[in-house]
Amino acid sequence: MAHVKIKVATMDAFCMEVFQKFGFTEGEARIITDVLLLSDIYGIESHGAQRLVRYHKGIQSGMIKVEAKPEVVFETPVSAVIDGHEGMGQLIGHFGMELAIKKAKESGIGIVTVRESNHFGIAGYYAKMACDQGLIGFGSTNSEAIVVPTFGRKAMLGTNPIAISMPADPYPFFFDASTSVVTRGKFEMYNKAGKPVPDCWGADENGQACTNAGHVLANIKAKAGGGIFPLGGAEELTGSHKGYGYAMISEIFTAILSLGMTSNYNLMNNHGGTCHAFAAIDPAIFGDPQAIREHFNNFLQELRDSPKREGHDRIYTHGEKEVLATADRMANGIDVDVKTLEEMQDCANYVGVDFDKYFGDLGVEINFNPDEHTQY
Amino acid sequence: MAHVKIKVATMDAFCMEVFQKFGFTEGEARIITDVLLLSDIYGIESHGAQRLVRYHKGIQSGMIKVEAKPEVVFETPVSAVIDGHEGMGQLIGHFGMELAIKKAKESGIGIVTVRESNHFGIAGYYAKMACDQGLIGFGSTNSEAIVVPTFGRKAMLGTNPIAISMPADPYPFFFDASTSVVTRGKFEMYNKAGKPVPDCWGADENGQACTNAGHVLANIKAKAGGGIFPLGGAEELTGSHKGYGYAMISEIFTAILSLGMTSNYNLMNNHGGTCHAFAAIDPAIFGDPQAIREHFNNFLQELRDSPKREGHDRIYTHGEKEVLATADRMANGIDVDVKTLEEMQDCANYVGVDFDKYFGDLGVEINFNPDEHTQY
Repeated sequence: MAHVKIKVATMDAFCMEVFQKFGFTEGEARIITDVLLLSDIYGIESHGAQRLVRYHKGIQSGMIKVEAKPEVVFETPVSAVIDGHEGMGQLIGHFGMELAIKKAKESGIGIVTVRESNHFGIAGYYAKMACDQGLIGFGSTNSEAIVVPTFGRKAMLGTNPIAISMPADPYPFFFDASTSVVTRGKFEMYNKAGKPVPDCWGADENGQACTNAGHVLANIKAKAGGGIFPLGGAEELTGSHKGYGYAMISEIFTAILSLGMTSNYNLMNNHGGTCHAFAAIDPAIFGDPQAIREHFNNFLQELRDSPKREGHDRIYTHGEKEVLATADRMANGIDVDVKTLEEMQDCANYVGVDFDKYFGDLGVEINFNPDEHTQY
Repeated sequence: MAHVKIKVATMDAFCMEVFQKFGFTEGEARIITDVLLLSDIYGIESHGAQRLVRYHKGIQSGMIKVEAKPEVVFETPVSAVIDGHEGMGQLIGHFGMELAIKKAKESGIGIVTVRESNHFGIAGYYAKMACDQGLIGFGSTNSEAIVVPTFGRKAMLGTNPIAISMPADPYPFFFDASTSVVTRGKFEMYNKAGKPVPDCWGADENGQACTNAGHVLANIKAKAGGGIFPLGGAEELTGSHKGYGYAMISEIFTAILSLGMTSNYNLMNNHGGTCHAFAAIDPAIFGDPQAIREHFNNFLQELRDSPKREGHDRIYTHGEKEVLATADRMANGIDVDVKTLEEMQDCANYVGVDFDKYFGDLGVEINFNPDEHTQY
């Protein structure tokens, strides 16, 4: 599919205007825009501008309530439970992680679980919030059930990403990954490219491995059975039960501890019901944070310096690709496909934003290789 | 390979005598024996009696120091750092989790990181300790580097299991899995059976996928390059970077925060240097623990009840196989292969225990299918 490059500043200004037109305050629009843009800047295109349509439709249908404010319904010095009251996921997520950070600064650790939210963007954004303040950050969310448990043929789990970030030099450790082999976005890329997917990616309506991306996607959409496999693929032999286990860990910290909706109820009857979890840990509760940081730096460097596989010249540590992507996106702009651009235009028309003011001079086509975008 | 069935009570009595003869107190022998036996009873044979030889050789060589006592070197109300002083891993692990549990009961959460320990058995034992007291338990350890990072050809990471357990009915959630696709024990089983391993399991000395189990094992032993792949296999396309990320999370909580040795230094120069992490969380810091438990029970039941893949009649939740294995082992005894039996005899001779008193009447051969044993 044809893609265009859009300058980060242009997309930023467009999103800021759109979200304020939706009724969010300038401060709220700032948070939502920051979450979306970080995703594009980090090269996780599936969760950036591509998702604007989801928020547009969610607000339009009343599923996402613009006026809702997150409420702390239970609290201890090291924990809190938040009811998001079906508000915008990014705002609830930001509020939740701010609270976890505050508790970590006061008590060493803070864990916050959230119910009744909506899609919050990338989990890594929230982990990064803690990391930016010298803490270890953790973020997770459940989501619409599109992942089958091992030996299942009905999707019962979300792609349930788990993100962890920790300060390090020359750049932080930043791990943000779905607990499924891949996310739906990868199937969509392969479907558009007409390529078969690996047989460890997804199941047909009978729960059997299926390499036809379009077939799996159509079933997911129709809720006709099948879905994406957990990390580890179809069989215990390749570790399917492990990915399934990590998805369960996400459900425990997001939906179970918050008494919220597990992924198999997510998005039913135009009700998001999404649950999140956030944690922050101050490394200083284990000793000298600078000594810990240097120890970590050394290990990360040893990994990067260690001998490479034949045909490869680089071993990445987690967060390194995001640094490379950031340098590229800030210099060259972010990738947006034409379909997303159309959705952005539709959204602009809906809220009354002059689309051409931002994007009237676009039209350059670029090549796009789905395999370059592997984080999710 | 020929196997025998040994009654749990017989193995228990044998281990108790052996470890006391090694110089441990009765109480210490009780803990060590409990950890080893839980592994066999749960069907994780690779970490039970099979590992006795490792402890025997470790004590004999002076790597494991029988007299060492774990020392708390840093502490806050929610955290601690322990120096194991190269003692027996199970004793240090038990001490560490007891401390995490104490802190969780007082402060809601306790995280304990440990350096300078040795192999501690299964991580799940420690997670279960917390779960048995109504808490969410977490255990992890680093280990000898036999896992290659994505795109690497030198093993830099251990199999670094992560275990989480949480109270539930009719049985607890119990997840305990290496962050690699499989552990070395699986390669050994396939090697003995003369079967090729899946190409997502391990790398040869050039870092390329290799289906010859014996070749990978020989390289690991000789430190000639290659090793086991992270969960997700060889390529980012199948999620290799995700398993690598989980292995890193284990290293952070075990070796980095404790300022201990990362896996790439583990077992160098007859020095274990193994690092562990333990955490306990009281569900009551998120509300009514009984309501949380029932909410969790419902979801686990929904998973078990959900539609099965063609050809499968059961979806397991984590911990269910361990319950089934326990019922079997308590009734029928635990599986021990003849090589392990020989190692047990060697160990008995070394410490002066009458082997025949325990195992003189054995000799039955049973069939053994490595694919029945999938947890690790």
